[in-house]
Amino acid sequence: MWAACKVKVHDFLATTSITLRRCLRLGATMAKSKFEYVRDFEADDTCLAHCWVVVRLDGRNFHRFAEKHNFAKPNDSRALHLMTKCAQTVMEELEDIVIAYGQSDEYSFVFKRKTNWFKRRASKFMTHVASQFASSYVFYWRNYFEDQPLLYPPGFDGRVVVYPSNQTLKDYLSWRQADCHINNLYNTVFWALIQQSGLTPVEAQGRLQVDEVMTKEIKLPTEMEGKKMSVTRTRTKPVPFHCDIIGDAFWKEHPEILDEDS
Amino acid sequence: MWAACKVKVHDFLATTSITLRRCLRLGATMAKSKFEYVRDFEADDTCLAHCWVVVRLDGRNFHRFAEKHNFAKPNDSRALHLMTKCAQTVMEELEDIVIAYGQSDEYSFVFKRKTNWFKRRASKFMTHVASQFASSYVFYWRNYFEDQPLLYPPGFDGRVVVYPSNQTLKDYLSWRQADCHINNLYNTVFWALIQQSGLTPVEAQGRLQVDEVMTKEIKLPTEMEGKKMSVTRTRTKPVPFHCDIIGDAFWKEHPEILDEDS
Amino acid sequence: MWAACKVKVHDFLATTSITLRRCLRLGATMAKSKFEYVRDFEADDTCLAHCWVVVRLDGRNFHRFAEKHNFAKPNDSRALHLMTKCAQTVMEELEDIVIAYGQSDEYSFVFKRKTNWFKRRASKFMTHVASQFASSYVFYWRNYFEDQPLLYPPGFDGRVVVYPSNQTLKDYLSWRQADCHINNLYNTVFWALIQQSGLTPVEAQGRLQVDEVMTKEIKLPTEMEGKKMSVTRTRTKPVPFHCDIIGDAFWKEHPEILDEDS
Amino acid sequence: MWAACKVKVHDFLATTSITLRRCLRLGATMAKSKFEYVRDFEADDTCLAHCWVVVRLDGRNFHRFAEKHNFAKPNDSRALHLMTKCAQTVMEELEDIVIAYGQSDEYSFVFKRKTNWFKRRASKFMTHVASQFASSYVFYWRNYFEDQPLLYPPGFDGRVVVYPSNQTLKDYLSWRQADCHINNLYNTVFWALIQQSGLTPVEAQGRLQVDEVMTKEIKLPTEMEGKKMSVTRTRTKPVPFHCDIIGDAFWKEHPEILDEDS
Repeated sequence: MWAACKVKVHDFLATTSITLRRCLRLGATMAKSKFEYVRDFEADDTCLAHCWVVVRLDGRNFHRFAEKHNFAKPNDSRALHLMTKCAQTVMEELEDIVIAYGQSDEYSFVFKRKTNWFKRRASKFMTHVASQFASSYVFYWRNYFEDQPLLYPPGFDGRVVVYPSNQTLKDYLSWRQADCHINNLYNTVFWALIQQSGLTPVEAQGRLQVDEVMTKEIKLPTEMEGKKMSVTRTRTKPVPFHCDIIGDAFWKEHPEILDEDS
Repeated sequence: MWAACKVKVHDFLATTSITLRRCLRLGATMAKSKFEYVRDFEADDTCLAHCWVVVRLDGRNFHRFAEKHNFAKPNDSRALHLMTKCAQTVMEELEDIVIAYGQSDEYSFVFKRKTNWFKRRASKFMTHVASQFASSYVFYWRNYFEDQPLLYPPGFDGRVVVYPSNQTLKDYLSWRQADCHINNLYNTVFWALIQQSGLTPVEAQGRLQVDEVMTKEIKLPTEMEGKKMSVTRTRTKPVPFHCDIIGDAFWKEHPEILDEDS
Repeated sequence: MWAACKVKVHDFLATTSITLRRCLRLGATMAKSKFEYVRDFEADDTCLAHCWVVVRLDGRNFHRFAEKHNFAKPNDSRALHLMTKCAQTVMEELEDIVIAYGQSDEYSFVFKRKTNWFKRRASKFMTHVASQFASSYVFYWRNYFEDQPLLYPPGFDGRVVVYPSNQTLKDYLSWRQADCHINNLYNTVFWALIQQSGLTPVEAQGRLQVDEVMTKEIKLPTEMEGKKMSVTRTRTKPVPFHCDIIGDAFWKEHPEILDEDS
Repeated sequence: MWAACKVKVHDFLATTSITLRRCLRLGATMAKSKFEYVRDFEADDTCLAHCWVVVRLDGRNFHRFAEKHNFAKPNDSRALHLMTKCAQTVMEELEDIVIAYGQSDEYSFVFKRKTNWFKRRASKFMTHVASQFASSYVFYWRNYFEDQPLLYPPGFDGRVVVYPSNQTLKDYLSWRQADCHINNLYNTVFWALIQQSGLTPVEAQGRLQVDEVMTKEIKLPTEMEGKKMSVTRTRTKPVPFHCDIIGDAFWKEHPEILDEDS
C-alpha cells in the first residue's frame, strides 16, 4: 500500500481526495511501524550512578591546525583564550557541569556526581559537549583572531570517563595538570632554543634529548604559567581561573565543587 | 619533591641550573606517573566487529533555533542545503563513511562494516561526527544565509547504533525516511493551512486532527520532495542525492554501498 | 590442505610418516589461525576500578524445587544451612570475597574494592560464583537432606552490580535484608495461618490482604530470626553470622570488611 | 520507626496487636523503599539484537581436577561422556539453544539469533548455563565414574560472545574444533610416548619439540576421533553427534540450525 501511495506524494495536495490522503498517512505510518524494530539495536550507555562523569575533548590534528593558522609558539594566547571561551559557553549551555580544566588543545568537563541530565547517557554527555565546543570555536574565532581568518572548520574528539570517588576525580585533574606541566616545560625550552638561540627544530630536539640546554640563553615569558593552564567553574556564571589544582589548596578554597549536594 | 620544585617553575629558565631543571622534569614526571592509574577507569566501547556503525545527529533545541533565525516553513531550503553541506564535509574529513541520510535537523552517517577507524571505538565515531558537523554548520552558515546572521552557536546530540546485517541497516534508513515522510506530510499541510488558508496554528492543528482538510485550497511547492530529504554518498567525493531509499531500487543502483569489500 | 589431511587423522599414528604428521600439524594450525579473528567479537566487560563488585545469585524456579523436595514452610532450616555451606565454599574457593549475605534462595557476594581477580571481568566473577555455588549445592546436599534425595540438579541465575562507595554498598545489603524481613513477615504469618489455624492457602492469602489476622492463635518458632538471614564473612576462614546488617552496629564491629586496604 | 519496630520482631506473633503488626510491615516497607535506589546501579547488558549468542564454559583448574580424579590420558571417555550429558541437560532445561559443541573441559552453547529469553541479557545467559552445567556435573558424576568418588565440587567459568552473521558463527565453531584437533594431536602423541614408549613427560615434551617421533611404536586407540569431539543439537531432544563441523557438509545436512525462523 505504501508503495502504491508514495508515487503520488509529489502533487497530492492540489489534487488529492481525503481518502487518498488518509491512505498516504496510513501508508507512511504503517511503513514506519514496520521498521521501528531497528530501535532495539540501540545500546544503553548509562553512566554508573553516583559517579563523577568526565568528558575530555581533544583537538583533531591540531598540530596541523596550529601551523596553518600561524599560532605563536610555544603557546598562542589567542588560542588559549578562545579555548576557554568555548569551555565557558559549554558550561553555560549545558547543565550540571561543575568544573572544566584545559590546556593546549584539550579540555575536560566534570558533571556533578548526581546529575541526571539525559538520564546520564554517555553519548549525550560527550556529543553535546563536543558539538557545542566545536560550533563555539568557529563562532567566537574572530573575537580572538582578528587578523587571521579561519581556514577550515576544526574537529574534536571526545570520550567519557567515570570516577567513583572525590579522590579519583582529583587525581584525574592532577594527571591532566601534571601532563600539562611536562609538555609545557618541554615546549617552552624547545621553542626558546629555536627562537632565541637560533637552533633548527632538529637541533633543538637533539639538545633536549641530551638534556644539556644552556638555559641562560633563554628568556621565558613571565606569563607562561598563566597561559599554561586554565580552570573554569560554575556558580551562576562560569569564570576562568588560572591556578594549581594538583595540591589540596584549590579544593579547600572551593569546597562547593565536590559538595555532593551541589 | 614535586611541590618543592613547582614554585620555581615560573622563572626557572632564566636562572635555573641543569640540576634544577632535571629535578623539575623528574618531579613532573613522577607526579604524572603517580596519577596515571586514573586511565584504568576508561571503559572500552568498541563496536561489535563486522557490523554497520551508524551515527545519528539531532539538532539541539532546533525548534527555537529555527524561530530565532526566521527559517521558512515548513522547510527552509537554505537550512536543508546547509545541513547537506555539513554532511558532505563530515564525509570528506572523516574516514570510511559510505552513506549519509538526513532530513530536517537530523543526519545519519553509516561507516562501512569492516572499518577499523580508531579501532571502532564508539566515542570516537560519534564525537568526531558531532564536532565536525557543528563546526561546519557555523563555518558555512554565511554561504547559505546571506541576510540572516547566526545569533549563537548551535549544539547537536549524537548516538551510535550498530546493525549486524544489510537488512537491518536498510530498515534503519527506511525508518528514518518513513519518519521524514510522516513529519513532512503533516508539516506541509499544517503550514499550508496557516499560510494559504489563513488559519491560526491552533486552528490548523485542530483541522489536522479531525482530518478534513479542504485540500483544494492548498498549493504545494513542487520542489517539496527535493527539499524533503537528501542522501549523500561517497566515492572519491560525496555527492548529494534526493531520492527514495525505502525501496530496493536505490540499493540495486548502488551496490557498492553495501559491498562488503568496499 | 587441511581437508586432505583430516580424513587420515583417524589412523595416522600407526602408519604416518613424519612428513604427513607435519602436514597435519601445519594444516590444523593454519586452519586455526584462519578462524582466530572470531576472538575480536568478545566484548570487554571490566568492572569500573575502585568499586565494590557484587554478585547476586537467585535460585531458578525454586518455588517448584522447594515443593518437589518437601521443604518445610515457611523456612526449611536444612535448605538455609545448605545455602550457607555453599556460600562458604564459594568464599573458600574464589579470591577476594569479603562478605556474603543470603536469605531464602538468594545469595549476594561482595568482592573487595580493589580486587584484580581476573582483571575485574564481570563474566568471570558471576560465572565462577554461579557454577561453584551450584556444584556445591549438589555436592553437599546429602549432608543436610539425609532422608530426601535430590531429584534433579538445580540452576541459579546471577548478575553483577557495581557500587562506587561504602554507603551504596551498605545500602545494597540493607535493601536485601529489608526485603528479607518483609518476605519473612508475610511468609511466617501466611504459613502459621495454614499450619496452626487450619486455613487453606487461598484463605490465608485473603486474610493477609485484609490485614486482620488473629495473631493470638499463632505461635512463632523462636528461632525464626536466626533462620531468617545469614551473613558470612572471611578472615582466614569464612564463618556464618546471623545478625542485623541494616544498622551501623555491624559495620562498626567489623571495620575490616570495608577497609580499603583489606 | 523501623529501628523501634525491629527489636520486637522476635516474638511479635504471639503478642502483637494489629497496630503493631501494621507498624512493622510499614517499617520494613519504608526501609526497603529507602534503599531501593541501589537498583539503579545495575547495568544493562542486553546482547545486540539479531545476533547469535554464544556461551562458552571452561573448567576451572581442570588439569588438577583430572589428576585428582585419575582421568585416563590423553582422553578419559567417562569424563567426555559426562560433559556431553551435562550439555544435554543444559539444552533440555534452558530455552532456545540450537547447538552445543565441546571438547576436553570446555563447551560452547549457541542460542538462536532471535531468542528473547530473559530479554537477551548476557548475565542471564551465562550464569544459567554455568550453574546448570556445574550442578549437572556433580549430579550425574556417579553415572559415569562408578568407582571414582567425586572429591570436591568443580567450578567453571563462562563468557558470552555475540556473532552477527552465520559465517562468523560457523567460523567460531570451526575455531574451537581446529583448536581441539591441535590439542588432541599433541596430547595423543605425548601420552603415547609415555604410555607405550616409556618416556618420561619431560622426554616426551622434548621429543615433540624436535618433531621426530618414532610413530611406528605407537598405537592409537581407534575411538580417538569419537572421543575427541562431540556436538549436540536440539529438535525436541538434544542428541550427541561426533563429527566434523569445520567443513560445509555438516551445515548442509542440518540447515535447520542456522535457519533464521527456527
